[in-house]
Amino acid sequence: MIRIFKYSDIDKSAIFMRSEPPANVEETVAGIIADVHENGDAALVRYAKKFDGAELSALEVTPRELDDALKSVDPCFLEVIEKAAANIKAFHRCQIRSGFVLTKENGVVLGQKILPLHRVGVYVPGGTASYPSTVLMNCIPAKLAGVSEIIVTTPPSRDGRVNPNILAAAKLGGADRIFKSGGAQAVAALAYGTESVPPADKIVGPGNAFVAEAKKQVYGRVAVDMIAGPSEILVIADDTCSAEYVAADMLSQAEHDVLASAVLVTDSAELAEKVGAELEKQLPALPRYDIARASIDNNGKIIVAENLKQAVEISNALAPEHLEICVDNPFDYLDMVRNAGSIFLGKYCPEALGDYFAGPNHTLPTLGTARFSSPLSVDDFVKKSSFTYYTPEALAGVKNDIACFARKEGLEAHARSVTVRFDK
Amino acid sequence: MIRIFKYSDIDKSAIFMRSEPPANVEETVAGIIADVHENGDAALVRYAKKFDGAELSALEVTPRELDDALKSVDPCFLEVIEKAAANIKAFHRCQIRSGFVLTKENGVVLGQKILPLHRVGVYVPGGTASYPSTVLMNCIPAKLAGVSEIIVTTPPSRDGRVNPNILAAAKLGGADRIFKSGGAQAVAALAYGTESVPPADKIVGPGNAFVAEAKKQVYGRVAVDMIAGPSEILVIADDTCSAEYVAADMLSQAEHDVLASAVLVTDSAELAEKVGAELEKQLPALPRYDIARASIDNNGKIIVAENLKQAVEISNALAPEHLEICVDNPFDYLDMVRNAGSIFLGKYCPEALGDYFAGPNHTLPTLGTARFSSPLSVDDFVKKSSFTYYTPEALAGVKNDIACFARKEGLEAHARSVTVRFDK
Repeated sequence: MIRIFKYSDIDKSAIFMRSEPPANVEETVAGIIADVHENGDAALVRYAKKFDGAELSALEVTPRELDDALKSVDPCFLEVIEKAAANIKAFHRCQIRSGFVLTKENGVVLGQKILPLHRVGVYVPGGTASYPSTVLMNCIPAKLAGVSEIIVTTPPSRDGRVNPNILAAAKLGGADRIFKSGGAQAVAALAYGTESVPPADKIVGPGNAFVAEAKKQVYGRVAVDMIAGPSEILVIADDTCSAEYVAADMLSQAEHDVLASAVLVTDSAELAEKVGAELEKQLPALPRYDIARASIDNNGKIIVAENLKQAVEISNALAPEHLEICVDNPFDYLDMVRNAGSIFLGKYCPEALGDYFAGPNHTLPTLGTARFSSPLSVDDFVKKSSFTYYTPEALAGVKNDIACFARKEGLEAHARSVTVRFDK
Repeated sequence: MIRIFKYSDIDKSAIFMRSEPPANVEETVAGIIADVHENGDAALVRYAKKFDGAELSALEVTPRELDDALKSVDPCFLEVIEKAAANIKAFHRCQIRSGFVLTKENGVVLGQKILPLHRVGVYVPGGTASYPSTVLMNCIPAKLAGVSEIIVTTPPSRDGRVNPNILAAAKLGGADRIFKSGGAQAVAALAYGTESVPPADKIVGPGNAFVAEAKKQVYGRVAVDMIAGPSEILVIADDTCSAEYVAADMLSQAEHDVLASAVLVTDSAELAEKVGAELEKQLPALPRYDIARASIDNNGKIIVAENLKQAVEISNALAPEHLEICVDNPFDYLDMVRNAGSIFLGKYCPEALGDYFAGPNHTLPTLGTARFSSPLSVDDFVKKSSFTYYTPEALAGVKNDIACFARKEGLEAHARSVTVRFDK
């Protein structure tokens, strides 16, 4: 049973507590990374056997394997992912930026160039489910940014193959090469490179606690998108909303992972009770019952707030990955939302719509990091360079200012690098 | 003496090798972070005594201390930093972005909101020099982004005070509170909060190897700007450029730190020799001779390339923090530059101009991370949220597509969260 709290009555820290990552992960991951760094492909093949039960003769998916897989994909599914890809492209195209230039009358030119990253690694989890949607959500913004080479890596099945739906999405998303490797070892390969896997400039994509820890450990050597934690939804709903819809949306999050969390914040004690009952009603019919049950019982919460304004404040403090606002006039609350990865407005906007189809990215900040992080976007696949041009006259006009500033910082050579140009 | 290499003759890996961070740092920093997390202010006071030799009765700079310090600042210097601040503001104002909205004829509304971070910590190094310029370069973009609270932290002098020029820059830059703490302990305080120091959403600013390692260790709990390594310059120059200017610019980098690196890439063997001689001529006159000498001897390099195109390619492979292009028509090469933090164009554009004055940021990606990172900018102080609104009719139109996609991923509850809305 999900727990119901009255916000005014309870210990606030309990509400804001999130599940901690499992212990021991740090050391295990450090060992795997060192091994891949040292032993390259041989380590990847060994780990594929150990963790995925797959005997690999080659790490890279061949063109032939790709063709064979594409033939085996359900044509209806191909149509669906094409529609989804079109929506994802349309949204992310709005994120493409240009550089700028700033000119001054004394001939000074300042500016900012925007350049794509050269090579990006996209991690696609395997495990309890396979996620072609993740492939689209990561490859499409990279492609729009102009990345030259997109490398997908994903754990193989026991038979040494990659799920054909993943391969179809990778092809559609514009992936250039696909490797059969998962977990911390795949992250290590993308960070350091191996005989087969070229080193990437940035590693993106979700993963379990091992993948997240590996991304943290290689951060700095390469860029990473974010350190992902378990998935989360916070639903704000009032008594005009169907308990059935709310419960279904919470369960869509809960079925991901026993660590996933589904939270309802409502101003209606009646809706709270009804949603509690609906969860119990809908749970038994789910194929992933055990996972959803554990998630709801351990991490699920219903919080009864005094009003919807307070509900939004609670949400801002939690900074959820997904936020649904299931009320009649959801746009009334949009400006109040300060911290949330992706916001779903209204009663006909379940999170699953965004997971697959609507267009905004589904790679989102978890564990309260929406306080300072953003959904994955085209911005993640570009970098900026600034540039400065001064004429001799323009530099002469500011040479004393720069020399003064440099000397106050005790950096005489900085001062001289300007004055040397005017000494004669 | 600086070493001169002919590019075609040498082991390329030697050119691309960078100095490694000192060992042992990791463990020391982990200990400091745990100590500050557990003991809060008491640990900060203890470390201020141990590392800075300062006996502190309070960690925060008081309004009175601030006023007193401002009175003691050279009025000429105040004028200079005001001019610099105006230039920095003008450039960074061009980086301010708006969100967007995308509407579709079926009533669908998609969009992206851009929101400022709430509280940001700016680390300002003390040590061998004090850097009011760093205060401006970090605070101004934060302020322009709309950050509510900017916290500056910097190591105290032995007398328990903070350099008045730093305080003047902090006031001008819009800092809200200033703390006397440096090193890994200051980063820990900003990440976890103490009795005095409030926890920040993001930590920015340069620092030594301990500060860099501390930022790496708290990354994920809070955001960080980048993991900074030693400062670097790469100068591309042809034989039309004065050896005197090139040597002076290289020394301005070399005086920062023995680990700093200054590299010249030229198509002229003659210029290479001349710059080598000029370095020897200019070096003895520098107050920070020992540092600059060690940097030039250990990390300095002159590379003779076959032509300027190859020089730019070498630069792209090194991905320098600062790049000067000292030739007659520098804009001819701007498009070829793929990886560089800040680019200085022409013979009257020494790096020091950008360090203090021109407007672009001086917090830049080091150690080759310009491959994937960017200069500090307004973007570092905002985050994005996406939003989605669908009408009942619009959702009805795609419900089967979403259900199909969800079921292919084995996520039945995702499918049901959509179909439940149309069951009756």
